[in-house]
Amino acid sequence: MPPQSQARQRLLIKGGKVVNDDLSVVADVYVEDGVVQQMGPNLNLEPSTGLVVLDATNKLVIPGGIDTHTHMEFPFMGSRSKDDFYTGTKAAIAGGTTMIIDFAIPQKGCSLTEAFDTWKSWADPKVCCDYSLHVAVTWWSNKVKQEMESLVQNKGVNSFKMFMAYKDIYMVNDEELYEAFSCCKELGAVAQVHAENGELIAQGAKKMLAMGITGPEGHELCRPEEVEAEATQRAITIANAANCPLYVVHVMSKSSAKVISNARREGKVVYGEPIAASLGTDGTNYWNKDWAHAAAYVMGPPLRPDPSTPGFLMNLLANGDLSVTGTDNCTFDICQKALGKDDFTKIPNGVNGVEDRMSVIWEKGVHSGKMDENRFVAVTSTNAAKIFNLYPKKGRIAVGSDADIVIWDPKATRTISAKTHHQANNFNIFEGMVCHGVPVVTVSRGKVVYEGGVFNVTAGEGKYVSRPPFPPYVYKRVRQREQVCQPVPVKRAPYRGTVSGTSVTRK
Amino acid sequence: MPPQSQARQRLLIKGGKVVNDDLSVVADVYVEDGVVQQMGPNLNLEPSTGLVVLDATNKLVIPGGIDTHTHMEFPFMGSRSKDDFYTGTKAAIAGGTTMIIDFAIPQKGCSLTEAFDTWKSWADPKVCCDYSLHVAVTWWSNKVKQEMESLVQNKGVNSFKMFMAYKDIYMVNDEELYEAFSCCKELGAVAQVHAENGELIAQGAKKMLAMGITGPEGHELCRPEEVEAEATQRAITIANAANCPLYVVHVMSKSSAKVISNARREGKVVYGEPIAASLGTDGTNYWNKDWAHAAAYVMGPPLRPDPSTPGFLMNLLANGDLSVTGTDNCTFDICQKALGKDDFTKIPNGVNGVEDRMSVIWEKGVHSGKMDENRFVAVTSTNAAKIFNLYPKKGRIAVGSDADIVIWDPKATRTISAKTHHQANNFNIFEGMVCHGVPVVTVSRGKVVYEGGVFNVTAGEGKYVSRPPFPPYVYKRVRQREQVCQPVPVKRAPYRGTVSGTSVTRK
Amino acid sequence: MPPQSQARQRLLIKGGKVVNDDLSVVADVYVEDGVVQQMGPNLNLEPSTGLVVLDATNKLVIPGGIDTHTHMEFPFMGSRSKDDFYTGTKAAIAGGTTMIIDFAIPQKGCSLTEAFDTWKSWADPKVCCDYSLHVAVTWWSNKVKQEMESLVQNKGVNSFKMFMAYKDIYMVNDEELYEAFSCCKELGAVAQVHAENGELIAQGAKKMLAMGITGPEGHELCRPEEVEAEATQRAITIANAANCPLYVVHVMSKSSAKVISNARREGKVVYGEPIAASLGTDGTNYWNKDWAHAAAYVMGPPLRPDPSTPGFLMNLLANGDLSVTGTDNCTFDICQKALGKDDFTKIPNGVNGVEDRMSVIWEKGVHSGKMDENRFVAVTSTNAAKIFNLYPKKGRIAVGSDADIVIWDPKATRTISAKTHHQANNFNIFEGMVCHGVPVVTVSRGKVVYEGGVFNVTAGEGKYVSRPPFPPYVYKRVRQREQVCQPVPVKRAPYRGTVSGTSVTRK
Amino acid sequence: MPPQSQARQRLLIKGGKVVNDDLSVVADVYVEDGVVQQMGPNLNLEPSTGLVVLDATNKLVIPGGIDTHTHMEFPFMGSRSKDDFYTGTKAAIAGGTTMIIDFAIPQKGCSLTEAFDTWKSWADPKVCCDYSLHVAVTWWSNKVKQEMESLVQNKGVNSFKMFMAYKDIYMVNDEELYEAFSCCKELGAVAQVHAENGELIAQGAKKMLAMGITGPEGHELCRPEEVEAEATQRAITIANAANCPLYVVHVMSKSSAKVISNARREGKVVYGEPIAASLGTDGTNYWNKDWAHAAAYVMGPPLRPDPSTPGFLMNLLANGDLSVTGTDNCTFDICQKALGKDDFTKIPNGVNGVEDRMSVIWEKGVHSGKMDENRFVAVTSTNAAKIFNLYPKKGRIAVGSDADIVIWDPKATRTISAKTHHQANNFNIFEGMVCHGVPVVTVSRGKVVYEGGVFNVTAGEGKYVSRPPFPPYVYKRVRQREQVCQPVPVKRAPYRGTVSGTSVTRK
Repeated sequence: MPPQSQARQRLLIKGGKVVNDDLSVVADVYVEDGVVQQMGPNLNLEPSTGLVVLDATNKLVIPGGIDTHTHMEFPFMGSRSKDDFYTGTKAAIAGGTTMIIDFAIPQKGCSLTEAFDTWKSWADPKVCCDYSLHVAVTWWSNKVKQEMESLVQNKGVNSFKMFMAYKDIYMVNDEELYEAFSCCKELGAVAQVHAENGELIAQGAKKMLAMGITGPEGHELCRPEEVEAEATQRAITIANAANCPLYVVHVMSKSSAKVISNARREGKVVYGEPIAASLGTDGTNYWNKDWAHAAAYVMGPPLRPDPSTPGFLMNLLANGDLSVTGTDNCTFDICQKALGKDDFTKIPNGVNGVEDRMSVIWEKGVHSGKMDENRFVAVTSTNAAKIFNLYPKKGRIAVGSDADIVIWDPKATRTISAKTHHQANNFNIFEGMVCHGVPVVTVSRGKVVYEGGVFNVTAGEGKYVSRPPFPPYVYKRVRQREQVCQPVPVKRAPYRGTVSGTSVTRK
Repeated sequence: MPPQSQARQRLLIKGGKVVNDDLSVVADVYVEDGVVQQMGPNLNLEPSTGLVVLDATNKLVIPGGIDTHTHMEFPFMGSRSKDDFYTGTKAAIAGGTTMIIDFAIPQKGCSLTEAFDTWKSWADPKVCCDYSLHVAVTWWSNKVKQEMESLVQNKGVNSFKMFMAYKDIYMVNDEELYEAFSCCKELGAVAQVHAENGELIAQGAKKMLAMGITGPEGHELCRPEEVEAEATQRAITIANAANCPLYVVHVMSKSSAKVISNARREGKVVYGEPIAASLGTDGTNYWNKDWAHAAAYVMGPPLRPDPSTPGFLMNLLANGDLSVTGTDNCTFDICQKALGKDDFTKIPNGVNGVEDRMSVIWEKGVHSGKMDENRFVAVTSTNAAKIFNLYPKKGRIAVGSDADIVIWDPKATRTISAKTHHQANNFNIFEGMVCHGVPVVTVSRGKVVYEGGVFNVTAGEGKYVSRPPFPPYVYKRVRQREQVCQPVPVKRAPYRGTVSGTSVTRK
Repeated sequence: MPPQSQARQRLLIKGGKVVNDDLSVVADVYVEDGVVQQMGPNLNLEPSTGLVVLDATNKLVIPGGIDTHTHMEFPFMGSRSKDDFYTGTKAAIAGGTTMIIDFAIPQKGCSLTEAFDTWKSWADPKVCCDYSLHVAVTWWSNKVKQEMESLVQNKGVNSFKMFMAYKDIYMVNDEELYEAFSCCKELGAVAQVHAENGELIAQGAKKMLAMGITGPEGHELCRPEEVEAEATQRAITIANAANCPLYVVHVMSKSSAKVISNARREGKVVYGEPIAASLGTDGTNYWNKDWAHAAAYVMGPPLRPDPSTPGFLMNLLANGDLSVTGTDNCTFDICQKALGKDDFTKIPNGVNGVEDRMSVIWEKGVHSGKMDENRFVAVTSTNAAKIFNLYPKKGRIAVGSDADIVIWDPKATRTISAKTHHQANNFNIFEGMVCHGVPVVTVSRGKVVYEGGVFNVTAGEGKYVSRPPFPPYVYKRVRQREQVCQPVPVKRAPYRGTVSGTSVTRK
Repeated sequence: MPPQSQARQRLLIKGGKVVNDDLSVVADVYVEDGVVQQMGPNLNLEPSTGLVVLDATNKLVIPGGIDTHTHMEFPFMGSRSKDDFYTGTKAAIAGGTTMIIDFAIPQKGCSLTEAFDTWKSWADPKVCCDYSLHVAVTWWSNKVKQEMESLVQNKGVNSFKMFMAYKDIYMVNDEELYEAFSCCKELGAVAQVHAENGELIAQGAKKMLAMGITGPEGHELCRPEEVEAEATQRAITIANAANCPLYVVHVMSKSSAKVISNARREGKVVYGEPIAASLGTDGTNYWNKDWAHAAAYVMGPPLRPDPSTPGFLMNLLANGDLSVTGTDNCTFDICQKALGKDDFTKIPNGVNGVEDRMSVIWEKGVHSGKMDENRFVAVTSTNAAKIFNLYPKKGRIAVGSDADIVIWDPKATRTISAKTHHQANNFNIFEGMVCHGVPVVTVSRGKVVYEGGVFNVTAGEGKYVSRPPFPPYVYKRVRQREQVCQPVPVKRAPYRGTVSGTSVTRK
């Protein structure tokens, strides 16, 4: 039984530089029962059998990554994403990520609870690291509202995603958005949006096909970045009207990121999540002469052709305008992608990332000098834990925290390749990228699950993590505002004059 | 018969400074048959009977104002706006405006052509100056599309307005907007929008009433300026997807004006129309302790409580970020406003402006030093003529132009008041404002219709003005882009590999 | 004698589309004595000897271009620019430009008047078209102030340029800038600035050389665009403090253009002048492997490596955020450029443009659909005439205007090349660019000076054009603000309490 | 002897909610020897004599405030600020601040070390809490550079301030700024600037006096906010050229704050410090009819008349665009202010704040819902500790940290008044402000120095705190960039052609 085996495991990480989001300090870390028990320079532990000692000298000791956005074995667009919860979490671990948050997505008209149960039933027997589930709201009714409440109170769900795209499939309209946001606010959940104007995508796709543009470049051309920025602006406005905090998933464009940044400057409670793909590569790939290459990058919202996009997003991520990072990991192999070989609208949307996210962000963010190692920890782990109310059990190395820990070699490099990666897919959108920053050892709940390229995992070893509502990091301000910022009526004498309408009959 | 009487009328305006949008020059202007025939310094005309000579020494001679946005005798919200086409155009003339463009607005499901005919039948017998009609598109169907085409081709309509507000009444959704914009583009018409998110207004209104806020301040609180800015951004995005030029009516807020300005910087063909109300007063009035006062300012979108709004809008108008000015003149008296005495959502929306627009803009724009007299002419007349394809017959004083001319005294002042104005309404939202810039004489199609406070008008004397499609000022760039800016497909070898979906059955 | 020969010359341009900045209309243009005498459809002129008839059917008839910024035969950086006033104006004519404004630039401590006289003595015997002279203020004293006054009152100068770069040579400091701006305001002159922080350039150049970067790329690296944007912001702030209108020469970067646009939105009277080079090419050329190629693009401020710069500037030029276009034409051949072969700071700064400006702007602006033909006329001619107080004699085709006219074929194309151009230089920074828009005939003051590739010019035929102070287009607002926007002291009772300082002696 | 008495002091703070910048948690805090020794829920300490127990139930336990910007007993403008290091630090303690950082400011030409020694000699015998000293660089020479190095290496100084204002007194020019920044970068010090264009202030002051504006409103009118924004932009540009991190003291205006925010978005390492005054009041006070009232608010840069300024700055502070808060506490009483009763330029510049900063920020920031309690701790304490390299000894309540702790009652209110405050001044710029958030107990280095309105302080009990160079929070990115972001020369074949200058002799 995994919990017991973990309970027995004792672990000492020696001599590393422990990096939290506020500070780096050389310290030993002692772990027992899957939890950090002691931390300090030169811990003096009595030698005992069963103590695993890891030497982290000249290495960093960082909180395991949290990937806020994955779609393992997702049935989507006539196919199913290739990485299941086993290969997906194994790949995560190899990359230094120790928790993923996936999405349970009901069809329109279907039960949210059933979707949640279905996804959980897929995940539980397979996951190699901890995970949790966002739930999507793809339609609206009183039943949906009740299910949201029940999921929050009984299932540990504190986040719901609404789609503004995928017309007729997942898309909700403004009224439904408002209702869903209002409900989230009441329940203390984080409202998430896929922000693209689904109507314009539908029209754009028709237009491109009519113009004879059937290849992957049509995918971007039919939904340029202003389609994303518009929806982002709209979602923020609607959320604000409902006094609901908002989390924008997969920020892909400069203009969308600017919208978020500007809203934050005005005091709106909004979080932006760029992903490994938008931080590490760009949409020029859609114009690649090789169809298979171009198709491999198809995801929604698309990557942007402006090659300055990744650097721009990284600057905002470094500065705090963007908050957390996910991957939207949703892998389809070339044969699956080929469903859309004659029509880009049929290419299954999705790219890899769960394994490479940490390295890509280190390379493009830390090695480049845009952020330091502490901000790296914040954006790959700590902020996610705060927003989804897992902090400080997750997202920090401190006494009492879960021992989800990575030993990270900031000087080593590795070259990303589909030939060597651990994902189920046969293509890697970061192919050939040389990254500084290599996870040497990954510890999940106190167990060494990956070391020097060797896995030590068991399917189902990971746990579903419940997330309580009203994350203080998100909701403190929201609640205070509700108390102090309400408008009050002007006191006036009643109007006592004549009242007269004019009945008009039109022909 | 008016046309004949005009034909006979000969007019010489002597010694004034003729102000066009590009230049001011001291010149005489000679008019015959309602058209400017000669212009130059010291015109030497043979004296003849019937020549009316007006001395304009030390005065400005400017093109008559064009009010791009009025609602005379509009059946709306259980009442009908007080100024009909007679009093409304008479007031216009007194203020130096010689043409208005009103709106024919069908109910959802009703014929656009019938609406046009109805409005025209109201206007024709009453108008004292030239007018034209925009037509609203309040729903969508093939029939609507055909009617739009017919209105453009047979009725001289080259502009259509779509409402993003007034849910269930006039509001159209994004799909309908896209269709309407596409149709406008095809026909060479100017697409206009009332840009506010109608869904959020509906929700906001419910919320305010639930909080016990029933007074006029609730009108603004339920639709703060971001509700306007959001819709403006959305309309621009949708119009751009349809490659359709866009005209945003009644720009009321700084944030909405910024959205327009930014879009223009990116090369989008978009025009913003602030109005006399948004340039001359502000939304603090909604918090006035006197209900009747506060209610008098209720219009949609509302005036904004930020008192720096008018100056900000005027700066953008001066700079070219905003293009033209209207009034949204739609007057209701206090008894009509009182329909909403217990519920702000029932207060008929509308304010005055058609008479005072020119003076308000002179005072706040020219006297303040924000714009010069030439830009004043541009924003009160010339640009409207260009956008709606009336230039240079309207909007310019030049040989061959219609003799819609105002002698303007830039040094004189007048105090705006309901006691002295010529509108049918018993309240004036500019009450007490001292304005430099007074229209001394107004000439409509070569006839002196107003001089020194005395009218010389006949109901029905004005003419309906047809406006041909594809205004070059608006459409030249649009058409060129269609020719040179289309995306082309990437040339690729066809994909020859395996194709495989994964059939997934969900429980 | 040229004036007499012109007096006799009579010219009829038939059937073209006359394009002014507000309107395009098919009309004939009749010219006599160098001035447009009649204009209208199908002018019915009695046939007579000496009437030259030009067929402009299917062509555009546009006001001749005004290049606001040239440096002919400029002694600079140990060399002298290759195009003198003869070859330079001849090349201008070939490109459709009929007036240039050059700069008289005194050394620090030297007389402005003498510089003016020197430059005029160089130009007068050589110019083939009209010209005028800005004068530079490179130092400050009472004598400078008096000379400025005299130049304005006696020499027809209404613009002065101050350098914020070229430390120790031309650069003036903030105090001198303030004084110069104040003096311009008093005299009714347009203050111009070369906006770059000269101190940072000096430091950056040292740094680059110290790092071993001696090639042309160092020229850009030592003065990145924020160095330009900073100075632009500073100049605008100082000018505003002096209530002086400002004209920023050679806007080369997106960030600088944004600074100008933002200032305009705030109501500041500021004009930005992008140039053919910044609109037509970019700074990636500095990284060209061929030294001679890279060096050919060296100018100050440099072209920017961001390849989206030209399109961005063109958008702002189209929208009215930028106002006019020049070239900074200052040609050095490769042998001259080679003065800096081992040290980029010694490469003479300057590029070509006077011949190709009109075509480059047509291609990148009009053909691309960013602006229409009317805006083209505005930015190549009309606005310059307005700002420098030459309107409507220059910058418009109208009865009474100078007959500086170009017949422009918008459908024809030509390929720019040093092999075929008429400039004295052996390199062309637009080499290989295919441009729609070809000048077919150029008319200068009513004389056909260029037709179908053949010149008919005489050195000295052009005239020096005096420019009166206080251009209304620029100064109306400025003067009005001075009258109405002055702060007034608060009225207070005098303070009657104790006054006590505390004497402190520091060691 | 204080250290010994502290060594003996043992303190248990029970039952409070310990608020750090990342988390709030109910915990007891045990202190010994001035340092936090244990922390956790329900600490079980053996009862012993000498243990002081403080009940913090229902209260917050927060890190003591750090005021980054004070001027105690500052000899300035012919007077000396009223609060000396005794009254100033006592007042600080009463307000919940346990450390101040003051400025040692040499005259031009004078020794930095001597200034440092002088200020330290003033402070050491008087301070009631810990303090440190920034040093100003008011001129430039090799000696200055050497003294900077010595101060960093021997005196624990890691920050230097440069003035861009106070012409002829403290102001340095761009060249000096560049040198000072370069030196800071080399030494690992934080460069600080007072960002206002001193030249424009001097000109503006002359202008206002010439216009008869001699009262305090002239102080703002002569240096409107664009004068601050310009200098901020310039300082950032110069600092970036020197690759030096920048800290902008006393951010007073929206436009300056925007400049900082935008620079941060571009990845620049820049920090903005709004102050209690700019967050809590505004510049409308300069127009107060009572001269003494108006004069009391005179400081440089001035407060801004735009009343939305404080809320705007607070939003940016909440969002992370601004980083820390100080006060610029520099009190002069009315008799001292009266030195400028006939000429605003002679009013000693300075306001209070050291006592009220924490309450003002709580009220306007936390109570208003703009930030939560954790961000409050960040901006009043933690971030200052990080930037000035005192973290985590200061700025955090954690085992091993200095016991600078405040028990804060978030529900209690107090009314700020000169009648009750502890500053030496007889005026309080926040007079009458009711603030939620009251410091109940203040602990400095483990000693209860203030409790329930009663002080327990001894002059000289505070300590000078050395600050090591290269704060990791500031410098990690800077150093990384130096390693990876350097430009490299293009590899080229040498130019082998002719070289020819043209010798020009001017008359």
